Amino acid sequence: MAAFEPKNPGYRAASIAMFDGQPAMHALGIVIVRLAPGEVELAMLHAPTLTQQNGFIHAGIITAGLDNACGVAAFTLMPKEADILTVEFKTTLLAPARGERFVFKAEVVKPGRTLTFCEAKAFAEHDGKTTLIATMTGTLMAMLPRIAASHEPRASRA
Amino acid sequence: MAAFEPKNPGYRAASIAMFDGQPAMHALGIVIVRLAPGEVELAMLHAPTLTQQNGFIHAGIITAGLDNACGVAAFTLMPKEADILTVEFKTTLLAPARGERFVFKAEVVKPGRTLTFCEAKAFAEHDGKTTLIATMTGTLMAMLPRIAASHEPRASRA
Amino acid sequence: MAAFEPKNPGYRAASIAMFDGQPAMHALGIVIVRLAPGEVELAMLHAPTLTQQNGFIHAGIITAGLDNACGVAAFTLMPKEADILTVEFKTTLLAPARGERFVFKAEVVKPGRTLTFCEAKAFAEHDGKTTLIATMTGTLMAMLPRIAASHEPRASRA
Amino acid sequence: MAAFEPKNPGYRAASIAMFDGQPAMHALGIVIVRLAPGEVELAMLHAPTLTQQNGFIHAGIITAGLDNACGVAAFTLMPKEADILTVEFKTTLLAPARGERFVFKAEVVKPGRTLTFCEAKAFAEHDGKTTLIATMTGTLMAMLPRIAASHEPRASRA
Repeated sequence: MAAFEPKNPGYRAASIAMFDGQPAMHALGIVIVRLAPGEVELAMLHAPTLTQQNGFIHAGIITAGLDNACGVAAFTLMPKEADILTVEFKTTLLAPARGERFVFKAEVVKPGRTLTFCEAKAFAEHDGKTTLIATMTGTLMAMLPRIAASHEPRASRA
Repeated sequence: MAAFEPKNPGYRAASIAMFDGQPAMHALGIVIVRLAPGEVELAMLHAPTLTQQNGFIHAGIITAGLDNACGVAAFTLMPKEADILTVEFKTTLLAPARGERFVFKAEVVKPGRTLTFCEAKAFAEHDGKTTLIATMTGTLMAMLPRIAASHEPRASRA
Repeated sequence: MAAFEPKNPGYRAASIAMFDGQPAMHALGIVIVRLAPGEVELAMLHAPTLTQQNGFIHAGIITAGLDNACGVAAFTLMPKEADILTVEFKTTLLAPARGERFVFKAEVVKPGRTLTFCEAKAFAEHDGKTTLIATMTGTLMAMLPRIAASHEPRASRA
Repeated sequence: MAAFEPKNPGYRAASIAMFDGQPAMHALGIVIVRLAPGEVELAMLHAPTLTQQNGFIHAGIITAGLDNACGVAAFTLMPKEADILTVEFKTTLLAPARGERFVFKAEVVKPGRTLTFCEAKAFAEHDGKTTLIATMTGTLMAMLPRIAASHEPRASRA
């Protein structure tokens, strides 16, 4: 992938603060492992509370990790004043989420002023072996103060 | 939608047991509200622990509800001996997940021996108003004992 | 679906002109059958030149019809000066595209200043029976003169 | 990507015959450029008849190329007796399809007995520069004689 030039020189601190401001990430035990312009790696340990009926991590939880990885990757390239929201994503589940540890790697495919396109992969680490278990393609949107005001009347009224 | 004829006369008990066997649903506080052949409605109360940086419920959590609604809807039409897994889904996020209570409604669009296609909608109830906040289209797969053995060598070896 | 109020009083003529300006629609033999604010129905006759190896219409052609239906439905709600582009879509193929005539119905799920979300269904008419053969969910973007200039430097330089 | 071992030693001839049996590919002027187990590259020249209202190739046509690339890539790894159908795909449109020539590269992400998952990219060659214009993730299904008979009653009645 091409190296990206962040618009916000303080992108690292801003991205970590944005991530850290999400209680859901704490609840799921997801942490940032690596961060670069347009790229991020998150990780999560297995938790029996987050499984489905066969003991694998629930697809929704895997998706939460993938979505957040896409969000942080996109956010690293956004200007300082932007907030971010997810427009849509597709998750493909390639293999059961069986493992002791899960890694979510995302990268920006194409950044844009309004829309940023990302791809992410989820890996399971099990018995010393790493397996690709899921992929995501997603669209993220930068909410700039001016645009936020005009696009999202509900938000500005809140 | 057309009424569907369940293949498993005990589909209600089987679907509830499958849902109940998922610790992740308990952890997220998601419950079954309504269940019919090929249709299901789940609900979840707002929880501050499941929010993102703006106080809305995280998109991954909304997706977990939508995915599970699709899974249960598809499962109601599967034969008794089938297990179910999600192949893929796309989530579109139409509005912020702001509310006191969230509802996930799924229905089967086309059942099949191997693949079942579902659609789901997530609604937020906020200040007495109900808003469509997200949609999902997903593909679910029936794992029949014979098929499971031949398709998923990892699972049978485990 | 809720009735939508078009921003462009001349939305009918504008939508027909936009559709008519697409040589690909002529090449595929796709025509507008019905048009209302936020809703459109297109139709196409079977053509042996557009089939795949089993004599069914190719999934890409069905997708072209679905995508264009979404585009026109979204365009009916856009302001006069907007151009439109497709951001992304997902097509689910439920049944073979076998028939004498194909219909593509799209409706806007949520319009927005920048992004509009649509859903579409493709039907095959075969031996007097109509079958749902495919569904689409898609994201469309309004390109307003100002936004177009700042978002798409390549286009303005061309 | 890992090298894949084709199950059908005659995969090249079988894949080319399957592709060649699709009149839609001839109508769109899409040809096979490169073929290997689990990988394929297709190409298409610009044609004014396949454009949308701004003179770019229509998104549905780009999707037809991407979908077919996924289909052929998946087909190279299927057993001799299998037929193939597309289950679903998502297309993300990153940039306008402006160029003299378009290339569609697909690779198998995970092959399976029933389902095969693929990714594809579309590139535009314009003024000596190659640009990534679209991506696809798709699910393809092998229709084996026995499975085809039981899954697709409509087909067997035809």
